[in-house]
Amino acid sequence: MARIVVALGGNALGNTPGEQIEAVRHTADSLVELIGNGHEIIMAHGNGPQVGMINLAFETAAQSDETPEMPFPECGAMSQGYIGYHLQNAIQEKMAERGIAKNCATVITQVVVDKEDQAFKSPSKPVGSFYSREEAEALKEEKGYQMVEDAGRGYRRVVPSPLPVDIVEKDVISSMVDKGELVIACGGGGIPVVEEQGRYRGVPAVIDKDFASEKLAEELEADFLMILTAVDRVALNFATPEEEPLTEVDVEKAREYCEQGHFAPGSMLPKMKAAIKFAESRPGREALIPSLEKARDGLKGQTGTRIVAGS
Amino acid sequence: MARIVVALGGNALGNTPGEQIEAVRHTADSLVELIGNGHEIIMAHGNGPQVGMINLAFETAAQSDETPEMPFPECGAMSQGYIGYHLQNAIQEKMAERGIAKNCATVITQVVVDKEDQAFKSPSKPVGSFYSREEAEALKEEKGYQMVEDAGRGYRRVVPSPLPVDIVEKDVISSMVDKGELVIACGGGGIPVVEEQGRYRGVPAVIDKDFASEKLAEELEADFLMILTAVDRVALNFATPEEEPLTEVDVEKAREYCEQGHFAPGSMLPKMKAAIKFAESRPGREALIPSLEKARDGLKGQTGTRIVAGS
Repeated sequence: MARIVVALGGNALGNTPGEQIEAVRHTADSLVELIGNGHEIIMAHGNGPQVGMINLAFETAAQSDETPEMPFPECGAMSQGYIGYHLQNAIQEKMAERGIAKNCATVITQVVVDKEDQAFKSPSKPVGSFYSREEAEALKEEKGYQMVEDAGRGYRRVVPSPLPVDIVEKDVISSMVDKGELVIACGGGGIPVVEEQGRYRGVPAVIDKDFASEKLAEELEADFLMILTAVDRVALNFATPEEEPLTEVDVEKAREYCEQGHFAPGSMLPKMKAAIKFAESRPGREALIPSLEKARDGLKGQTGTRIVAGS
Repeated sequence: MARIVVALGGNALGNTPGEQIEAVRHTADSLVELIGNGHEIIMAHGNGPQVGMINLAFETAAQSDETPEMPFPECGAMSQGYIGYHLQNAIQEKMAERGIAKNCATVITQVVVDKEDQAFKSPSKPVGSFYSREEAEALKEEKGYQMVEDAGRGYRRVVPSPLPVDIVEKDVISSMVDKGELVIACGGGGIPVVEEQGRYRGVPAVIDKDFASEKLAEELEADFLMILTAVDRVALNFATPEEEPLTEVDVEKAREYCEQGHFAPGSMLPKMKAAIKFAESRPGREALIPSLEKARDGLKGQTGTRIVAGS
């Protein structure tokens, strides 16, 4: 029996509530199979499209009626509730189907970041709507937003993507896991907070869900960090004639591949970096990057990419 | 030391994120004082203004851009994340200030209602925006919404307000409370779900937070149900020259007052009904209805209204 933190991408959750309900039932199937095999699962997930949708809805509504503006951390908290509800509902259903008597619940999670993180100096993560150059200038002026031109489609606000330093609710999560409960936590990488005069204050930022999941896996002393993706295996020279899928790679080699630019930033690169960090955090720990569909086979080593400590 | 389920009204949380942050710090002060005195607190809360705001933002955005429509249960789940984040953040801060080493976290909570509940036949709870008669007719036609004229201000959608039957995450919440953690649960009365072919399906409805809190208090075998309100005491003939504040009342008398129409539906009436239900659920249980500011004195019997089982 292994303890496994499973990280699910926000893109795998669809773009509407209906799509999300379908997607989570599918995900729940894979996860509950792992649970049926005796493993302990802790679930983390992304929220890119979902927090974008929530943010956009409030931005749009704030323009045309008395809806207040909704800060980014609060939008993230909403996405944790929204996605967590669907996930726990689907997992509860699939466990009941298999006669697994386990509880499942979502814990709203704040993740601490360092105020001095370099990311705050160069915000890079686009969020919310597209604006014209004039609108972008106005937002910069009025609200102090950082705006960038995004791939010819207009201007967007960018927020920093700092690294996770600590998980505020880690002890709660840990004792729930020790009790045998399936916990959904760190949704969207967690609500980013900084420590300030003895309190945690939410900041407009996005913590990469791969790094937050890695932090969670370390805190929970997990055996495996499993980062689900859309392809069967991580590949070198992805989408070229020289594409070469990776079955198992040690952290030194993996780091080399990262430096050689084999992995796309915002996609496979953070997954590989989080995998490396976890694999070298303590002897015996491994990271796995299989496809969502083949999570079970990934754990057995039949598919996916395994990232292991060097010998 | 007593175990106390505290129910906080959504109206006490303000109408904007900024107002809510202020409000919860104030609430946290009162609660943490009770904890400092050795009591176990479980926190439930309403979400009327907040879920209304979220629902409205999505309705508005869905009209003017590609934002999907957001079903009512999903809006409720978002409100649990949004309010829970602020509450746990403020409570964590206040506990740290007083050197109380306790964990605090929000659990996303689904509450089961009966498909056959009479409330589904006569939806009564207004939600979301105001519409013209023509718009209301169109929504009735297109989406099957029930619409009513609301106090001369236009037409609004009404959803049913069924009674809570069960709390899906009760075992998780219970074991967290047993571990000494401060849990925030059943936000907005819980996400309403019905049981259907072995799964829980979200339904557009609003469960009264007073009844959900009462159910939670019974499940957790609490000693007290404390329903916070805006006035110092429940009163007979409220806001008339004959106003008479109630200090202590037994369930028989309380029921009589309810029948005599002393308490406003949607305001003090559900609080009294939930209080009666809890006080008579088991010998020794009491319900308290003090003001938010005087929660501590309410527990000591120095203020508020006490509802006790008859002799």
